[in-house]
Amino acid sequence: MLVNCVAYQEGRKVADIPKEDISEYLTRPNCFVWVALKDPDPSELDEMREEFGLHELAVDDARQGHQRPKIEEYGDSLFAVIHTIEPAGDELVIGEVNIFVGPNYILSVRTRTEKGFTTVRARCEREPHLLKHGSGFVFYALVDTIVDRYFPVIDELESKLEEIEGNIFGKGTARSNIEALYGLKQKLMTMKHAVDPLLEATGRLCGGRVPQVCEGTQAYFRDVTDHLQRIHGTIESIRDMQTTAIQVNLGMINLNETEVTKKLAAWAAIIAVPTLIAGIYGMNFKNMPELEAAFGYPIAMAGMVLVDVVLFLWFKRIRWL
Amino acid sequence: MLVNCVAYQEGRKVADIPKEDISEYLTRPNCFVWVALKDPDPSELDEMREEFGLHELAVDDARQGHQRPKIEEYGDSLFAVIHTIEPAGDELVIGEVNIFVGPNYILSVRTRTEKGFTTVRARCEREPHLLKHGSGFVFYALVDTIVDRYFPVIDELESKLEEIEGNIFGKGTARSNIEALYGLKQKLMTMKHAVDPLLEATGRLCGGRVPQVCEGTQAYFRDVTDHLQRIHGTIESIRDMQTTAIQVNLGMINLNETEVTKKLAAWAAIIAVPTLIAGIYGMNFKNMPELEAAFGYPIAMAGMVLVDVVLFLWFKRIRWL
Amino acid sequence: MLVNCVAYQEGRKVADIPKEDISEYLTRPNCFVWVALKDPDPSELDEMREEFGLHELAVDDARQGHQRPKIEEYGDSLFAVIHTIEPAGDELVIGEVNIFVGPNYILSVRTRTEKGFTTVRARCEREPHLLKHGSGFVFYALVDTIVDRYFPVIDELESKLEEIEGNIFGKGTARSNIEALYGLKQKLMTMKHAVDPLLEATGRLCGGRVPQVCEGTQAYFRDVTDHLQRIHGTIESIRDMQTTAIQVNLGMINLNETEVTKKLAAWAAIIAVPTLIAGIYGMNFKNMPELEAAFGYPIAMAGMVLVDVVLFLWFKRIRWL
Amino acid sequence: MLVNCVAYQEGRKVADIPKEDISEYLTRPNCFVWVALKDPDPSELDEMREEFGLHELAVDDARQGHQRPKIEEYGDSLFAVIHTIEPAGDELVIGEVNIFVGPNYILSVRTRTEKGFTTVRARCEREPHLLKHGSGFVFYALVDTIVDRYFPVIDELESKLEEIEGNIFGKGTARSNIEALYGLKQKLMTMKHAVDPLLEATGRLCGGRVPQVCEGTQAYFRDVTDHLQRIHGTIESIRDMQTTAIQVNLGMINLNETEVTKKLAAWAAIIAVPTLIAGIYGMNFKNMPELEAAFGYPIAMAGMVLVDVVLFLWFKRIRWL
Amino acid sequence: MLVNCVAYQEGRKVADIPKEDISEYLTRPNCFVWVALKDPDPSELDEMREEFGLHELAVDDARQGHQRPKIEEYGDSLFAVIHTIEPAGDELVIGEVNIFVGPNYILSVRTRTEKGFTTVRARCEREPHLLKHGSGFVFYALVDTIVDRYFPVIDELESKLEEIEGNIFGKGTARSNIEALYGLKQKLMTMKHAVDPLLEATGRLCGGRVPQVCEGTQAYFRDVTDHLQRIHGTIESIRDMQTTAIQVNLGMINLNETEVTKKLAAWAAIIAVPTLIAGIYGMNFKNMPELEAAFGYPIAMAGMVLVDVVLFLWFKRIRWL
Repeated sequence: MLVNCVAYQEGRKVADIPKEDISEYLTRPNCFVWVALKDPDPSELDEMREEFGLHELAVDDARQGHQRPKIEEYGDSLFAVIHTIEPAGDELVIGEVNIFVGPNYILSVRTRTEKGFTTVRARCEREPHLLKHGSGFVFYALVDTIVDRYFPVIDELESKLEEIEGNIFGKGTARSNIEALYGLKQKLMTMKHAVDPLLEATGRLCGGRVPQVCEGTQAYFRDVTDHLQRIHGTIESIRDMQTTAIQVNLGMINLNETEVTKKLAAWAAIIAVPTLIAGIYGMNFKNMPELEAAFGYPIAMAGMVLVDVVLFLWFKRIRWL
Repeated sequence: MLVNCVAYQEGRKVADIPKEDISEYLTRPNCFVWVALKDPDPSELDEMREEFGLHELAVDDARQGHQRPKIEEYGDSLFAVIHTIEPAGDELVIGEVNIFVGPNYILSVRTRTEKGFTTVRARCEREPHLLKHGSGFVFYALVDTIVDRYFPVIDELESKLEEIEGNIFGKGTARSNIEALYGLKQKLMTMKHAVDPLLEATGRLCGGRVPQVCEGTQAYFRDVTDHLQRIHGTIESIRDMQTTAIQVNLGMINLNETEVTKKLAAWAAIIAVPTLIAGIYGMNFKNMPELEAAFGYPIAMAGMVLVDVVLFLWFKRIRWL
Repeated sequence: MLVNCVAYQEGRKVADIPKEDISEYLTRPNCFVWVALKDPDPSELDEMREEFGLHELAVDDARQGHQRPKIEEYGDSLFAVIHTIEPAGDELVIGEVNIFVGPNYILSVRTRTEKGFTTVRARCEREPHLLKHGSGFVFYALVDTIVDRYFPVIDELESKLEEIEGNIFGKGTARSNIEALYGLKQKLMTMKHAVDPLLEATGRLCGGRVPQVCEGTQAYFRDVTDHLQRIHGTIESIRDMQTTAIQVNLGMINLNETEVTKKLAAWAAIIAVPTLIAGIYGMNFKNMPELEAAFGYPIAMAGMVLVDVVLFLWFKRIRWL
Repeated sequence: MLVNCVAYQEGRKVADIPKEDISEYLTRPNCFVWVALKDPDPSELDEMREEFGLHELAVDDARQGHQRPKIEEYGDSLFAVIHTIEPAGDELVIGEVNIFVGPNYILSVRTRTEKGFTTVRARCEREPHLLKHGSGFVFYALVDTIVDRYFPVIDELESKLEEIEGNIFGKGTARSNIEALYGLKQKLMTMKHAVDPLLEATGRLCGGRVPQVCEGTQAYFRDVTDHLQRIHGTIESIRDMQTTAIQVNLGMINLNETEVTKKLAAWAAIIAVPTLIAGIYGMNFKNMPELEAAFGYPIAMAGMVLVDVVLFLWFKRIRWL
Repeated sequence: MLVNCVAYQEGRKVADIPKEDISEYLTRPNCFVWVALKDPDPSELDEMREEFGLHELAVDDARQGHQRPKIEEYGDSLFAVIHTIEPAGDELVIGEVNIFVGPNYILSVRTRTEKGFTTVRARCEREPHLLKHGSGFVFYALVDTIVDRYFPVIDELESKLEEIEGNIFGKGTARSNIEALYGLKQKLMTMKHAVDPLLEATGRLCGGRVPQVCEGTQAYFRDVTDHLQRIHGTIESIRDMQTTAIQVNLGMINLNETEVTKKLAAWAAIIAVPTLIAGIYGMNFKNMPELEAAFGYPIAMAGMVLVDVVLFLWFKRIRWL
């Protein structure tokens, strides 16, 4: 689906143009065309391939989807694959944005992604002195926006970890903790797959030789790289704490087992000792003077209770109960 | 066994030729010969060595098999070892494809591999403008096909992991989970051994100085490298989750142990307490008024039942039962 | 809030100057202006941006805060983000110092940080021969001071680890150890996030090409880098020991479980054996000669005691009790 | 002990020569001397040092032994230390081969190593066209042979792992598994110490600048490096599986513990319930009609048996028995 | 404390000289002064700083101590910090040697270190042809000696590991093993902190561009680096085995727990079954023919014993006892 198709000149919007006029605008000097597609069908991609002369392999990747994030050079144009991550209920939905950038065009193709990029367009049009840099700056603005949308997701994961940390030394939460920690790990892996390859890719746009289309925007891409590095650091940090948390949780489970065993032992003693006493007075010896005594029975009962009280207090003191 | 022996010129098939004519075609300009062998016996390899002037060490490797994946330069020719991975029942069968590539020939030798490469030949012949690149493009097409065949295998492993993840918090599945996780790990290692060295090798064909035979196909080898990197990423990710899953499983086993101990303790109490009461009324004291009472027995029985009901409810409440 | 605004010439303080005069002093040769802000409001930052011609992206970072430590070049000026770490009760408070350094100015902006940098100013003014190096030396002095303030924090963490190590083989401390180890890990991660990126950044100021503003101070930045490396080494070392300590703690928990089980078993035997004997003499066989014996009862009791004494000593010997 | 001392010229053996004549042959053009020592005493090494002008530090290393594998350049000669690994019963014996290579000599010194290198000599003499490369080729042949002798050892370790994998999910094998896994790890470390540094060292002989003595044999050393990489990969793979196997084994131990606890609980119930019933009918209430009934006793017994049969079947069903 | 102050010329000792004459000897050609200090007070360091023109930052480091090992260049002189490790009872004492090396002087400052370097001085004076290399060779000799003193310490740790390995599958040693393994880890970390940074530092003195003062001694520093690498390898290896040993120990603890539980279960059964039988014959049914039988009691007792013998043998057979 075609979302937008606009021509820009000298940093200012010229006009919304129909697809058919693209090739005309491509020939104008200092002019570039910005096309946005959403979940396109193959024929739309083919049209664009012809308009902009895109490389077969890049279009193939866009068609198939499920690529890993990357920024590739094809001659003087770039092809970028970037993951979008959108929370949906308790799940993370991974979408994909494919961006083709040439000296005089930029084509963004977004699939499985709810949120669009109208804010990017607005921001670019608000800053004509920056938009003058051409398609490279639009490329930066798109990447920057997608990366900035990672922050709330990663913040969510940090909160989740903190919530688990609040429960981890509590009682009776071992099972839910372990499930939560596993779920957290799954989401971290999703984030990691989106962030790490992209970090590597943007890193190459801000130092050393950069593709011509990105000339003059190095400081901006360094900023994006820095954001990605921050996210990367947070992911690694959560992963590290999560690993420790799983070990700690295992320790707590075992500690709990010990406590249950202690309780079992204590109560077993409290029941078994009077049972033994009762057994003794249940013996059939002829000559057992206590049995004849008037207060034998109550005294025996009192003895049982006394022993149990002593045991109970003792177990309380050594914290088995 | 000789599968095929075909000469190509200017990107088009010239003829199926007999082995004996190979040397003749090798001298023609812009012509290359594509030979495919399957599980060859040593004499066939020796013949080929002489026809194409292959290096002794490379032929040795092909003869012995069980090499690690690699792409080596011998002068202006290449020798590649690539693993094929084919599922057979619950096992993965590792085969090997050895490829010798020179400016005017390509020889593929496949061993312990079911699936052939007729599709590769068909694809190449369908695209003469690409086949014009010569033996280097055929080399790419072969590698690309083998790598693409890794995807269903890795998808299978991902499904397996998801299946285990679905069971891991269930009851009574700890043993089968642990066996499945170990089996998964074994298969991952097999994949890893096929993918990682190949990734390193193809990476050298798409950047910096590339062997002459691969000139003009860098973008294609970058595509293969990208696929391999995707597979590599998935393998690492499954490995990572699998490690966590083993820890989680251990946690669940211990948690289960605690629950069994709690059940044991609860039922022990429910049996032991009436046993104690029975013991008390089994004592032989002369003076035990309850024993004489008309309803002593039913009251004692009722008492026992009552105590047990209370205990049962209590244990239910604290979730020991 | 403006803390200070001072002009220096040839390594000596010229005057405390009002903000308005900054631009005047910036034009004087061999003169630089040193401004210190604390928790500034956006307008103050904007003023400074205009005075010193700071880059938009750098000011944005300073405004938003919560950056990772870094030192970035913008043309011939530098922008540094450094974390401060101040203990507050049992927590670590992470603040941020942003430093803008140009050939003739240095602007430090500190947020969420208690301790100021008056000592730095005093030290610099005491050593005019060093201060002659200009704003680069002040930059070094600030970084050095912040890094030196990490040492007491890391020493504190080392003491904490030693305290835990003292308890880890003790009894009844497993739970508090595990909590302490987890807390230690959290603090280590905080330190690590402050130190590791900064180490990387300062490393680039002491070797190879260095930004012009730091020329002549390489040996000093090497010293800072060395301090950071020492802290980094200590962090890694504590992390390593902490990981081992968690495993050891788990071992101790399980060992303890075994000891509880042994105690349970021993006491169970000590109670169960006389119960069995009592049960035997509680049988109703007609013909049980012991029952008739005059000393049957005391002998039976003595037997029970004897058996228990033997059992008790036995369990003591095999260390189950 | 001198094993051999032979002069070669143009790839062909000239003569077995006495030690005294070495210096004479060293001066002949295109001629090199190949000396093999076994467990030499210090004086023999000193003799050789003088004959060949070996570097003091290299001879020191050979004298002391217990070096890590390495290949060092001293001027235009090489000094190599390589570990030999020979199985002896259930142990691995680590020997050492020191090789000194110069343009016109090669001296191999083997210590604590059973197997000699007569096969290497035979192979070299069989292939004069290769032996023409001079001492560098002999050096390759020695290294290649030693490395090839690693394969059976590593195969043995792989079989060992497979054997353990076959037992790991069995019952009652936990202890022997854990001992076997630890022993496996020890042997892997031994292999790793032999292989990894050598891999690094041979890698430097097959690419970039190579020592003059190895000129023309790069392809051969690449082959050795490739073999070492294969062994390295296998070692890493076994290590990885062994780590997982230890975790799995721990899981199986805990699983087994749970099963024992379940069995304990089940049998305890099966004994305790009839004990309770017996206790009830052992009570001394006056008014217990069942006691008077003619079939009271057999009915009670039948009841006990019935309850136990029900319990037994129930425990079977929930797989506690 | 001044230990020594000697002037050397052309590799030979000229004279023991008083501190005051140092500056005089520094101006002589081919002459260098070797000063050794032990636990100096600040004033002594200041004196030396002036005599030799040492850099402020280097002297600061020497004064403060507790540096990490390093070798730093200050102009044409070097400053090295090296840890000494001396066993003291069951502890390792970490000392520090600071070495300042210039073209015509070498100053060694040792703190918290028992063993001196008179052997180094003796060795150097015995080999004037090497001492001719100047202060660089003395520097090498000092480093070499300190590194060689690491070997007995690391051997000690290896023996300790072997001792633990001998106990790890034994019974009743779990607690002492775990303590020993933790202690071993602590010492390994100490060694690692001394060795790893030094390895990195000496590695820079034996390849590529080396500081002028070390020209001509590269082969010697390569030897030191090689020794350090050997120690490094051994440390890593012990660490690796120690990690596995901790896991194995945990497995043994859990295995032991299972065995205790099995014993508990077996003895419980052996006591509980006759208790049940006794309970049955303690029932008060009127009509229990066995009770009247003349040999009822001995038969019942015999039955109990028989059942227990059978149980005992059974448990022995399934190895629960």
